[in-house]
Amino acid sequence: MQKIRSGTIAALLLGSIASPLRVAAAPPVAAAIREAALQDSIAWDFTEGLTTEVGPRPAGTPQEARARDWAVAKLKSLGFSNVHADPYSMPVWVRGHDEARIVSPFPQHLALAALGNSASTPAKGIEGEVVYFPTLADLQAAPDGSLKGKIAFVSHAMTATQDGSSYSHFGATRRQGPSVASRKGAAAILIRSIGTDQHRLPHSGVQMWADGVKPIPAAALSTVDADQLTRIVSRGQPVRIHLILTSRMLKDQPSGNVIAELPGADPAAGIVLAACHLDSWDQGTGAIDDASGCGIITAAALHAAKAGSLRRTIRILMAGAEEVGGDGGRAYFATHGSERHVVAMESDFGADRVWRVDFKLPASYAAVSNRISNALAPLGIAPSRTAAGGGSDIEPLVKAGVPVLDLQQDGTRYFDIHHTADDTLDKVDRAQLQQNVAAWAVTLHEFATTTESLANK
Amino acid sequence: MQKIRSGTIAALLLGSIASPLRVAAAPPVAAAIREAALQDSIAWDFTEGLTTEVGPRPAGTPQEARARDWAVAKLKSLGFSNVHADPYSMPVWVRGHDEARIVSPFPQHLALAALGNSASTPAKGIEGEVVYFPTLADLQAAPDGSLKGKIAFVSHAMTATQDGSSYSHFGATRRQGPSVASRKGAAAILIRSIGTDQHRLPHSGVQMWADGVKPIPAAALSTVDADQLTRIVSRGQPVRIHLILTSRMLKDQPSGNVIAELPGADPAAGIVLAACHLDSWDQGTGAIDDASGCGIITAAALHAAKAGSLRRTIRILMAGAEEVGGDGGRAYFATHGSERHVVAMESDFGADRVWRVDFKLPASYAAVSNRISNALAPLGIAPSRTAAGGGSDIEPLVKAGVPVLDLQQDGTRYFDIHHTADDTLDKVDRAQLQQNVAAWAVTLHEFATTTESLANK
Repeated sequence: MQKIRSGTIAALLLGSIASPLRVAAAPPVAAAIREAALQDSIAWDFTEGLTTEVGPRPAGTPQEARARDWAVAKLKSLGFSNVHADPYSMPVWVRGHDEARIVSPFPQHLALAALGNSASTPAKGIEGEVVYFPTLADLQAAPDGSLKGKIAFVSHAMTATQDGSSYSHFGATRRQGPSVASRKGAAAILIRSIGTDQHRLPHSGVQMWADGVKPIPAAALSTVDADQLTRIVSRGQPVRIHLILTSRMLKDQPSGNVIAELPGADPAAGIVLAACHLDSWDQGTGAIDDASGCGIITAAALHAAKAGSLRRTIRILMAGAEEVGGDGGRAYFATHGSERHVVAMESDFGADRVWRVDFKLPASYAAVSNRISNALAPLGIAPSRTAAGGGSDIEPLVKAGVPVLDLQQDGTRYFDIHHTADDTLDKVDRAQLQQNVAAWAVTLHEFATTTESLANK
Repeated sequence: MQKIRSGTIAALLLGSIASPLRVAAAPPVAAAIREAALQDSIAWDFTEGLTTEVGPRPAGTPQEARARDWAVAKLKSLGFSNVHADPYSMPVWVRGHDEARIVSPFPQHLALAALGNSASTPAKGIEGEVVYFPTLADLQAAPDGSLKGKIAFVSHAMTATQDGSSYSHFGATRRQGPSVASRKGAAAILIRSIGTDQHRLPHSGVQMWADGVKPIPAAALSTVDADQLTRIVSRGQPVRIHLILTSRMLKDQPSGNVIAELPGADPAAGIVLAACHLDSWDQGTGAIDDASGCGIITAAALHAAKAGSLRRTIRILMAGAEEVGGDGGRAYFATHGSERHVVAMESDFGADRVWRVDFKLPASYAAVSNRISNALAPLGIAPSRTAAGGGSDIEPLVKAGVPVLDLQQDGTRYFDIHHTADDTLDKVDRAQLQQNVAAWAVTLHEFATTTESLANK
């Protein structure tokens, strides 16, 4: 997932939500939807099926194509309409062999994973001396050219937060570190995984080379291995590492967004968009990132439609490429950006419970958002004063002014497994998954059925 | 670690321990030893040093040789006497490349690790159809020859226990499963890791081929991957796996036991033996198995000696080879078995707190064991009615009748990380490590200083 926050607060609207005296009563149908959704099995079956029958599915690869076919068949079997894939093409970075070995002073292997778009070492690898930086700022402060031939190592440790906000700060080491190290002349860069666990499973993730920067081999050590390397460096002897990070870049590979709809009675009333992404990193089976998100929105849409006829169409977008730069979201916008979306929502932060709802809605949505808050409250979800931002799959829509609502999930343990081999089905808590379905179902139902005009102003 | 239990109960002695009215008061010195040992830093420094400066150290390899040199230097610097290595040689199984890929119906990789003494596949690997067995008993019930050319898969799941007793039952799948599968004609065997975690880090471990059985490739899937394969098998389609498990066997490789002593005033009074093992599995740095055990006994011996002059010699045995069949313990017995050991103890079950003390001591030890029970009680340790059994490093001594006492550690989380890449320093809880040192220190002190005669009858 990549969280996007607008950083502004829709103060007028939030004022009306935060005051309990002024809220409108939630319609009784919400209770029935919640009750049914809390017993849901569709989201689990979707998550179990995609992770078991497809497994890892990096964007633009044959595995993602299998995921697309799987999702199209699944959505058709569940009764969705207009189920199809919108194709596009994209460049694909493919991992080869990742290996790191301390040559001296204390020979041993380190567990690591190349970062997306890493340059490849020769098959035999490279060897260099480690230069240690406690934080990204320390790396940035290194004199230009001072790292010539060296392996930069940034060990900045991330701590867990419920709202995932620490990812933005600590993730900069992954996003910017490689370009900074290359500018300083480094032969390669190793970072401490952007993760909050203590297991020897490195966290992958994408990074983009800044303009004009020469790509270098770039990888994340597991948090445990980074701490080990830090201890070894602290002994004061020069530390030499042999590094093998092979990979290759492929041009114009096929990817595609899966679309499915539950049609509304009034096509002119606009589309309610629920998004997730089908692709995953290559090491795990992408259970929490983001099979569960796709399961949640699929199940929720069905529960919303079951509760009564829809005025607006609920559209599911399962983006084919999110992890490696948001190609799916951009492709969706290119094809569908001109259609009328009354709201866009995205589920891409695991499967743990929704604890907060954020809004970025026009003033004309005040009544509907009040009813949503009331319908969510029995699930333990409180409205916030933080503006919604959506995620990468709907980012172009949000930037273009489409209203957005975020059902914020508890991210306390999300970065324990995010982008690792450990992102597997067993990490999904079924009861919390069902709470997500209930939260999404009442929200989608409200947007899709309200007879009020939802003017995007 | 390999736990050995005698299965008998030293009823007479235990009777005298279990009754609080008859116990002798612990000497006041015990309180001072406990207090000092609970502030200990030696055990942590030892564990940190060995895991950082040596890392993984499979028995009979150059890494174990480095560990031996490291330990000899460390023990000398800490003031031990007669510090040296007793050399011996042993066969060594060396892991090559481990890889498993489901070919059909749902292509994906599985995380696994070859078991000790596994046969090697060709470099290109082998391919076969999976035959699923829920338990070892189901595999045993398969008709002879029924697995010809197939890959047997036993998915028996282990559950955690505080005393580690479930390892004996579930570990049989690893110890016996490969030989059983080979007898049935299987081309290879995969087992669910003998572990209690949910991470994609397979649990290695040794297995010995039964007499006359042809070695086949044998490996443990991570618990997560075993559950994934079970789900895939449950879909009812034939499951084919491509398996690469390369390895090699080396004859007569050098290994050695590190010995160190804190001399007692009366050589005729016998030796108090405290054992651990220096070797580890190859994937992790062997922090809980068994660097921490070596740290505990080293620190405890020093605290015991600091509290007053010793009558009996406390001898440290750091076995060079435990994991792969107990070569170190046998070599120790061959060299030192005829010396008078008044007691043998071993620390090889992690670094979590001691919660119970087991005895298998002659009747003449009643007073000393009562004082030990009293000295342990303030640490939250209760005497049990289960007979002590020791571990592999002292097994030949125990079999020969040497009295034994077990300071049983809490094993609830031990099998989460046992024999995996995750056996690293961060898993050691410093406060619990110090409680171990305190328990060991008062126990060693009592055995080494008591003026009573400890007759081995």
